[in-house]
Amino acid sequence: MRKTETGLRFASSTIAPIGVIHTPFKHAKGTPIQTTACQNAKGIVELLPEFIRGLRDIEGFERIWLIYLLDRASAVQLVVRPYMDEMDRGVFATRSPVRPNHIGLSAVRLLSAEDNRLLIADVDMLDGTPLLDIKPYVPAFDSFEHARAGWLAGKSVAELVADERFERGH
Amino acid sequence: MRKTETGLRFASSTIAPIGVIHTPFKHAKGTPIQTTACQNAKGIVELLPEFIRGLRDIEGFERIWLIYLLDRASAVQLVVRPYMDEMDRGVFATRSPVRPNHIGLSAVRLLSAEDNRLLIADVDMLDGTPLLDIKPYVPAFDSFEHARAGWLAGKSVAELVADERFERGH
Repeated sequence: MRKTETGLRFASSTIAPIGVIHTPFKHAKGTPIQTTACQNAKGIVELLPEFIRGLRDIEGFERIWLIYLLDRASAVQLVVRPYMDEMDRGVFATRSPVRPNHIGLSAVRLLSAEDNRLLIADVDMLDGTPLLDIKPYVPAFDSFEHARAGWLAGKSVAELVADERFERGH
Repeated sequence: MRKTETGLRFASSTIAPIGVIHTPFKHAKGTPIQTTACQNAKGIVELLPEFIRGLRDIEGFERIWLIYLLDRASAVQLVVRPYMDEMDRGVFATRSPVRPNHIGLSAVRLLSAEDNRLLIADVDMLDGTPLLDIKPYVPAFDSFEHARAGWLAGKSVAELVADERFERGH
């Protein structure tokens, strides 16, 4: 049980994956570091059949958010050396996987939906990644084209791929 | 233990909040339904002190993603009647809180950071919401201004507030 200064107490919560994300990437090394870094990589979301009804109307959306567990990330680091930088940064100012709770977030392109399977593109996660949630990408809620991007401003991710630095066992 | 058709097995995982989000909204009724619906509502992220080092460099970002637990949402519904519609939709094609895993996602404006506290604006979550992760909002990764938005295309959320339909106890 954790307690904040203002006295709120938290118990830990249990989350159960609702499916799995199949991608071409077996290891961190060579995996695009963000969805925008590899426009052509395709994957499949396999939802557990019990949740199929929740997919109704999803095909109208060009993109969907996938929220998933970074299940092969190494232990938490609060300060990291990101792929795109030569300085250490606070982990909450990066998209590095070695964050508390190991939760990943990617806006992927939805190509088609059939039964409990979604064909997606612009994937940047490892094969077999446990899926926690799917949300529609809605520009009115999610798109802030000109938001200032701190140390990441002006960096190009177009050809960047990951290495093994944040993978468990390295 | 759940098992997918392709044979992957999942255990449930434990996640522990890293802080709490303080907002003006005590009940779902009257709370903006998205961050873009209430430009002026301010809040405070109170991070547990053990994670302070992870905030280094965060002030450079105009917006941050908050990933949090929708801890007062009612039981899971796979098909819902959203606030902005008069038809039932699959929960994964909505941003409704009654989703499996009850995980919420909002891009809020970061106004300032001091020690373990972040002053934020454009909040749409309930007071006392347990925080799971903070990520920088990076337009190159997150902004897709023209992504087709399915049944939500063209709907205005500017003045929409929630009611109690998805709140526990109703």
